[in-house]
Amino acid sequence: MSYVAPVKDMLFCMNALAGLDQVARLPGFEDAGPETAQAVLEECARLNEGVIAPLNATGDRQPSAWKDGEVTTTPGFKEAFRQFGEGGWQGLQHPVDFGGQGLPKTIGAACSEMINSANLSFALCPLLTDGAIEALLTAGSPEQQARFLPKLISGEWTGTMNLTEPQAGSDLAQVRTRAEPQPDGSYRIFGTKIFITYGEHDMADNIVHLVLARVSGAPAGVKGISLFIVPKFHVQADGSLGERNDVRCVSIEHKLGIKASPTAVLQFGDHGGAVGMLVGEENRGLEYMFIMMNAARYAVGVQGIAVAERAYQKAVAYARDRVQSRPVDGSTPGAAPIIHHPDVRRMLMTMRAYTEGCRAMALVAAAAYDAAHAHPEADARRDNQAFYEFMVPLVKGYSTEMSLEVTSLGVQVHGGMGFIEETGAAQFYRDAKILTIYEGTTAIQANDLVGRKTTRDGGATARAIAARIEATEQALAARSDADAQAVARRLAAARRAFLDVVDFIVAQGRANPNAAFAGSVPYLMLAGNLMAGWQMARALMAAQDLLAHGEAGGPTDAAFLRAKIATARFYADHLLVKAPAARDAIVEGADSVTALALEAY
Amino acid sequence: MSYVAPVKDMLFCMNALAGLDQVARLPGFEDAGPETAQAVLEECARLNEGVIAPLNATGDRQPSAWKDGEVTTTPGFKEAFRQFGEGGWQGLQHPVDFGGQGLPKTIGAACSEMINSANLSFALCPLLTDGAIEALLTAGSPEQQARFLPKLISGEWTGTMNLTEPQAGSDLAQVRTRAEPQPDGSYRIFGTKIFITYGEHDMADNIVHLVLARVSGAPAGVKGISLFIVPKFHVQADGSLGERNDVRCVSIEHKLGIKASPTAVLQFGDHGGAVGMLVGEENRGLEYMFIMMNAARYAVGVQGIAVAERAYQKAVAYARDRVQSRPVDGSTPGAAPIIHHPDVRRMLMTMRAYTEGCRAMALVAAAAYDAAHAHPEADARRDNQAFYEFMVPLVKGYSTEMSLEVTSLGVQVHGGMGFIEETGAAQFYRDAKILTIYEGTTAIQANDLVGRKTTRDGGATARAIAARIEATEQALAARSDADAQAVARRLAAARRAFLDVVDFIVAQGRANPNAAFAGSVPYLMLAGNLMAGWQMARALMAAQDLLAHGEAGGPTDAAFLRAKIATARFYADHLLVKAPAARDAIVEGADSVTALALEAY
Repeated sequence: MSYVAPVKDMLFCMNALAGLDQVARLPGFEDAGPETAQAVLEECARLNEGVIAPLNATGDRQPSAWKDGEVTTTPGFKEAFRQFGEGGWQGLQHPVDFGGQGLPKTIGAACSEMINSANLSFALCPLLTDGAIEALLTAGSPEQQARFLPKLISGEWTGTMNLTEPQAGSDLAQVRTRAEPQPDGSYRIFGTKIFITYGEHDMADNIVHLVLARVSGAPAGVKGISLFIVPKFHVQADGSLGERNDVRCVSIEHKLGIKASPTAVLQFGDHGGAVGMLVGEENRGLEYMFIMMNAARYAVGVQGIAVAERAYQKAVAYARDRVQSRPVDGSTPGAAPIIHHPDVRRMLMTMRAYTEGCRAMALVAAAAYDAAHAHPEADARRDNQAFYEFMVPLVKGYSTEMSLEVTSLGVQVHGGMGFIEETGAAQFYRDAKILTIYEGTTAIQANDLVGRKTTRDGGATARAIAARIEATEQALAARSDADAQAVARRLAAARRAFLDVVDFIVAQGRANPNAAFAGSVPYLMLAGNLMAGWQMARALMAAQDLLAHGEAGGPTDAAFLRAKIATARFYADHLLVKAPAARDAIVEGADSVTALALEAY
Repeated sequence: MSYVAPVKDMLFCMNALAGLDQVARLPGFEDAGPETAQAVLEECARLNEGVIAPLNATGDRQPSAWKDGEVTTTPGFKEAFRQFGEGGWQGLQHPVDFGGQGLPKTIGAACSEMINSANLSFALCPLLTDGAIEALLTAGSPEQQARFLPKLISGEWTGTMNLTEPQAGSDLAQVRTRAEPQPDGSYRIFGTKIFITYGEHDMADNIVHLVLARVSGAPAGVKGISLFIVPKFHVQADGSLGERNDVRCVSIEHKLGIKASPTAVLQFGDHGGAVGMLVGEENRGLEYMFIMMNAARYAVGVQGIAVAERAYQKAVAYARDRVQSRPVDGSTPGAAPIIHHPDVRRMLMTMRAYTEGCRAMALVAAAAYDAAHAHPEADARRDNQAFYEFMVPLVKGYSTEMSLEVTSLGVQVHGGMGFIEETGAAQFYRDAKILTIYEGTTAIQANDLVGRKTTRDGGATARAIAARIEATEQALAARSDADAQAVARRLAAARRAFLDVVDFIVAQGRANPNAAFAGSVPYLMLAGNLMAGWQMARALMAAQDLLAHGEAGGPTDAAFLRAKIATARFYADHLLVKAPAARDAIVEGADSVTALALEAY
């Protein structure tokens, strides 16, 4: 099997760290307790391990292909997507009213990790469809919801996000696609969109494009952007499909990775105008799109975790199998599998610790999302929402940046074989590189962290989280074992570094924005490292407690718990340890970032 | 122009840091002073910028192709290689007696950087040929030298290194290729070699394979390996080419990067045995091969610097051109080129500082190599040799690892366009990944650093270098400006961290090898960071002095010197600052590397 879903670790994170029992007390999630989670995850694992994972290498070798405006996806994708839809997986987190399963994000996020581990390219189609569903749930009219949501949720149709234009990448103020109001209340859309993931394909009966465009006469900049539904095929009042709309895929890109996922250039309105329906109100498009983007940003963070997990599994398998050189400790008389060599262990542990740390961080954030939406008390909703929003740029930014390092180590473990495409490790390295770019580059995430998430509330949310981390340190320090003591020390140093940086960012934000933003990505990396390290520290205590109280059993057996302790200790010793240097670079090195004269580059 | 050779910086490193004036006092290098260096570099730049660099993207799109045992290289390669040979570039560092130019490595290394920046795939052919020349110069008989060296040095023939077999990668003890002695003193070679760079191609009249094999009855392990010359075409006594030898290219690999460089599987002896000539004595093959490998390891380090430089140049060009978003400091009313955004500056400065730091380190090491070989005094030769040997794993390991980060940042600066293959940034990211693998993975370099270079002399060489660094700190501390003070502080902290690690490695080396080797790669990265940072610190002082004393002029103008100061400060603030954490991870985190039970992975 090329991929085995880490169901044990996912359940541990949900139960011991994210508080799934609390989630299951929220109104609407009463059936979503640990037993449901286990059943769902095991069923999800079967589909992804058996059907979707084997298509990953195929997709790299036989990518989506464009001909005369049509895109043919990799052999096997269409049938696998049919199974995915019929299994109810597209609707996992979506409302029961529209045919979904209504499960919490805490469970949905784990399932999302699985499909992304199985096949990053394939998983992008449901990922984007999720975004379209979220946007319509939030801002669509009841009629739009009734017309589009059931088909999207069933997987019969798919969705896209149309933001980027050649001159408008990170800078959506420069969007030029225009929308002309028609007497019947519809709009005609004209323009070119690029980088549209699954903008054209053969896996579904219809594609629901959500498109940012400017209504004639709208204000300049981001305050003049509206959101439109532009279906590939018109949808009649009775729900049946009509004529083709005036949107055409003129080409797809030749990319470094995720080759099976078609990245389309879409041309709207070359034959009189594509018919679009306004979503919500005019000029509020960016606001709605942010709903999709926030869901998508979190999901892309999960993609980072997913590809890291897959790269880790492949590297472990190779390291167990490949025999080369005698161990330095002389533990075997001759050459041994390379997993016996300390540096191979260091690489594998680095991959494992990053992946487990980010998974824990993401699932804890997901539980906050669930509470933010479903908690009966307003205070709890507000606090959880603030926590979740702080975590989104970290889940996105840190988990994807770490995936670059993890997939690079994955190639490295394979030595020369890693560089040969047939081996498969290189695909993860190529695929992962998009994750730090799309749905907002790491710098865009860091701008969000610095601006909306830190300086806007004067650092209050950041400091509140730091106080929770300090409580974890105290609980660790109260334990007598060396692991807890060591982790407590590293966690405290990282938390203090984080607080220093928060103070610096808040102080500089207005006065000297160049200094604050010079450290934005290092701040994001420090914060992500701290949050993942914090969850690993909590995991260490939970594992110790389960071992001591004999509560281990079922998925969390003693071997698993001991491994969790070792991995948490490794995280603190080798990853969390880097945090203080980031503080020094940000606080003391801000000026040297912009000191070089522009003409000297 | 897609590549502009950094001649100014190269000359600055040679003159102000590597002491080219001292090199030019060595016997044999009297003509190799600054003026020669400048003339050679400018001529070298013309060839590489004008002829070889434009073939880089072509090679990625039209890689070498195999058909019926023959390999056709990328269109344009053959003609470019002819120009390279005719210009005397293959013989740059090789003896005048065999037709070379006899220039020092200090100049040769800079030329090597240029061709590798221009075209990593193309440059591999001369790189391997250099290795074959070195091996024959050291261990070949006078007759072998006379027969092979002139043609290799003129570029009419090329050379290869045949080490790897499917079961013998890093572990050469497992080499199985066998050599049967013949009555005429020759040998018949039988076996399969893989990963043979330019093992077959159409750019030269003959290919001189240097092949590791076991003579029948030789001892097991590395002490039973001998080195053979196996030419593709037999070479007659009069130097003319005879029949084809019994070596065939059965396939070439489909790789992540350096696609234009054919990576061959070679089959020896399928038709009666390939005729081979023993080089030197039987069973001393590994020793001779290490000569080639040491030259090649240094050269691969230079490849890392080279691809980083090229990626940097491309990223700067894009960042100047791409307009997106308003600067956070409000310095322009509308959207500005992205080089105005602090995080883009941070990425570009990181790329630049790594590249300049490693270039300075490599050129200083090259000067030590020249002194180690040509200095009239034995003590000076010995000290320079020890310094050079310590630096080789750092030049190889650190410069290639940093090239992964730099080429990744290069893609990142391009945003979504970076992920599109046509843009070209992704090629550098793919190409660079081989550099941490071939000629000994980073872990193999780190083993060399820990074993032969650190514990063998009880840390003496390492501590001697640290003492020189301390002297630099004192010189910096004696200056009153903030840059020198800040750099002195970071350098001192990094040097102390390095010494702690040296003590730890020396102490653990025998007692607890797992602990020492668990930190081997982090030790290498710390040491490389320190050495590059040290040279940047020296560069800062040299630039300040040249500015103050009005010696600036010619290639080292005031703008260049100010940029050097800013880059050195950035290096200290943002890269050297990471060193102490590496110490903590190595010294305090050794046990957690191997704590996880093998069955728990």
